[in-house]
Amino acid sequence: MVLKSFVEVHPDSHFPIQNLPYGVFKPEPDSEPRPGVAIGDYVLDLSQIASAGLFDGPFLKSSDCFNQANLNKFVGLGRTAWKEARTTLQKLLSAEEPTLRDNASLRQKALVPMDKVQMLLPVAIGDYTDFFASKHHAKNCGLMFRGPENAINPNWFHIPIAYHGRASSIVISGTDIIRPRGQGHPAGNSQPYFGPSRKLDFELEMAAVVGPGNELGKPVDVNEAADHIFGLVLMNDWSARDIQAWEYVPLGPFLGKSFGTTVSPWIVTLDALETFASDAPEQALCPLIIFDCYICHLTWFFLEYNKSHVSIIPTGQEDASIVTKSNFKNLYWTITQQLAHHTINGCNLRPGDLLGTGTISGPEPESYGCLLELTWNGKNPLSLGSSTTRTFLEDGDEVIFTGCCKGDGYNVGFGKCTGKIVPSRP
Amino acid sequence: MVLKSFVEVHPDSHFPIQNLPYGVFKPEPDSEPRPGVAIGDYVLDLSQIASAGLFDGPFLKSSDCFNQANLNKFVGLGRTAWKEARTTLQKLLSAEEPTLRDNASLRQKALVPMDKVQMLLPVAIGDYTDFFASKHHAKNCGLMFRGPENAINPNWFHIPIAYHGRASSIVISGTDIIRPRGQGHPAGNSQPYFGPSRKLDFELEMAAVVGPGNELGKPVDVNEAADHIFGLVLMNDWSARDIQAWEYVPLGPFLGKSFGTTVSPWIVTLDALETFASDAPEQALCPLIIFDCYICHLTWFFLEYNKSHVSIIPTGQEDASIVTKSNFKNLYWTITQQLAHHTINGCNLRPGDLLGTGTISGPEPESYGCLLELTWNGKNPLSLGSSTTRTFLEDGDEVIFTGCCKGDGYNVGFGKCTGKIVPSRP
Ligand SMILES: [Ca+2]
Ligand SMILES: [Ca+2]
Ligand SMILES: [Mg+2]
Ligand SMILES: [Mg+2]
Ligand code: NI
Repeated sequence: MVLKSFVEVHPDSHFPIQNLPYGVFKPEPDSEPRPGVAIGDYVLDLSQIASAGLFDGPFLKSSDCFNQANLNKFVGLGRTAWKEARTTLQKLLSAEEPTLRDNASLRQKALVPMDKVQMLLPVAIGDYTDFFASKHHAKNCGLMFRGPENAINPNWFHIPIAYHGRASSIVISGTDIIRPRGQGHPAGNSQPYFGPSRKLDFELEMAAVVGPGNELGKPVDVNEAADHIFGLVLMNDWSARDIQAWEYVPLGPFLGKSFGTTVSPWIVTLDALETFASDAPEQALCPLIIFDCYICHLTWFFLEYNKSHVSIIPTGQEDASIVTKSNFKNLYWTITQQLAHHTINGCNLRPGDLLGTGTISGPEPESYGCLLELTWNGKNPLSLGSSTTRTFLEDGDEVIFTGCCKGDGYNVGFGKCTGKIVPSRP
Repeated sequence: MVLKSFVEVHPDSHFPIQNLPYGVFKPEPDSEPRPGVAIGDYVLDLSQIASAGLFDGPFLKSSDCFNQANLNKFVGLGRTAWKEARTTLQKLLSAEEPTLRDNASLRQKALVPMDKVQMLLPVAIGDYTDFFASKHHAKNCGLMFRGPENAINPNWFHIPIAYHGRASSIVISGTDIIRPRGQGHPAGNSQPYFGPSRKLDFELEMAAVVGPGNELGKPVDVNEAADHIFGLVLMNDWSARDIQAWEYVPLGPFLGKSFGTTVSPWIVTLDALETFASDAPEQALCPLIIFDCYICHLTWFFLEYNKSHVSIIPTGQEDASIVTKSNFKNLYWTITQQLAHHTINGCNLRPGDLLGTGTISGPEPESYGCLLELTWNGKNPLSLGSSTTRTFLEDGDEVIFTGCCKGDGYNVGFGKCTGKIVPSRP
């Protein structure tokens, strides 16, 4: 029998008792930020649950991790504490359990309607890394910019390629994105132009939130990497293609990315996603062609999920048009391989660090994860509804990501990750 | 007449009353970290000076910025507060001023011998960016890896090229550097190898510490950029050339850099360096060939300084050999241009962010800023003393940076930035 909460949850909701994703919110505009979990159309205020002494397990009983303005302390505690919190919260919210269900005054304080709260970044992000883990995305970018001979660079099959991203400009879903200005790639031998980006794009990604970190100089074993991942969010790695194309040789993307990156507010835990995990797809080769290498293993953590899609509400219109449908399992490198590779040189991760997957493009054109690929660098405009087309994003366009794993009678969903483009400041 | 402090300062010292660089230290192993300034062979404990009520100017009188474990709050206050602190401290330390000079009990508490203290990272670094601002370095790297035709990529003369670096692995001078492991660039068509880096290198750099930040979406004008820079440190951007060469296409350096970056403990303020500033060298062209562009101006902040050099104490030996001598004025792009460019897309900087200049190579082979250039990628071993040579760094080697501006009868120096290589962990 499917577990049910005493809070009524619509069958289409992303947030039934099987999910219980973590976020940080303010119940009132002037209240202190605090951690919460989503349940149906409500947010359960964990600072209230903690104050009421209801986290009574050995790990959390005397912890102040839910009286914090972010989740860093909690995610740093590790899987045993996470499991204890999940067990406590599933019991507390279940239809059979009277403790919270029948305590009107606590319910009143602790269950806040989701449409009344302000969501904030769930973690303080010390470092943000973005990978490049979809082979389809890598191939399409290579075809456009380097031609068919060496579309995918030889290193790509050996290492999960990544770059360090900008942590300061990561914003929460719903934050407007100001169109960046910069130098654009000149056509042929002409001079670069300067001004508002002419090729503003989204990138459909997910990102892992790091739990316990590792000490500088001590790599994380790939078989233990999952214990260092608290959960996943949706991520839009907004990209200015003209700025990126001009600047990226030889040191990689910089200002073409650093003007803003949007994450969804709810971190869906690996514990909630576990039932949807599948084995890794067969990778073409052991990355190092050696036995027992640091990155080759019977890895896991591919999600089979449906209903992940991107839609755009064009400026001045009301209706959203779906522009792509993709799937987390379209990644070649797993998030555990990404994390193990990230630390093999001794690099230290810290709780709350963010590891983006890279654009999640699938094999078919309808599953490409960004406008660069969907319009083939602007050559093939995309139809949005009956009379609107886009090559790249226009001011006023709103981009909406969503993603969800379908369980048997319930969803484990990620909610939404949205952002609207506003004009460059003069 | 040259200003003198009541604390005796040797004429060769980097830290006379004209300098007064800021750091964070612990007087005893179990004491709380606190801000200090260097004066001769002493550290002046600013938490003690603040507690004694001696910061009595309007900006600092009621601030707790010197009762913090890092300098982020102080550097975020901006130039007016920095000038006030400098005026207060120069007066307090001057030979003529009795307040501190004649107060034995305060002197006892506030002046700590430098060789007794532990220095810590002076700021919490939210984001770290590394530029590529020496033309000589860019040219040499291009010659080695791309050949003479297009040694310097065309974008280089238009934009200060940079990449986001890893903030978590920035360490204070004196911290051992563990040799990174990773995949190395295969020769020809062979497979990549895996193991401890075979081409471990230093990079002689300086780095700007950001003062007040900017709001996301609001670029900093290049003519106001200096007000956003608190000061400079020496920086060693340790680099594993074999890892870097294999991974950097197309997204830039990642694990070849992220295993450790060392900074010197004392932030030398722009206010102390101002007298050594010169105009920018004539840049070959306005980066955008347009009037009044965002980055072209009568920029300043090239330092004329001498005695900047790198030495290596080879493993098992006692004497250091100088391997290169360079100069900050060998940079093509100024730090104010770097900062303005960094924000032109709206990217937000925060107090304490670090902007590395990139390797400071000069035109002559003796002024190249890293072993990659000095040994031409290992082809020409370098002599260290009579019987020792190096292509790249060996376990046990200690690398020492120093840098100093020579004033009239005094120095404004940066102290040292050191690190010793220790073997990879198995
Ligand atoms: Ca991306
Ligand atoms: Ca560098
Ligand atoms: Mg981005
Ligand atoms: Mg480094
Ligand atoms: Ni100009």
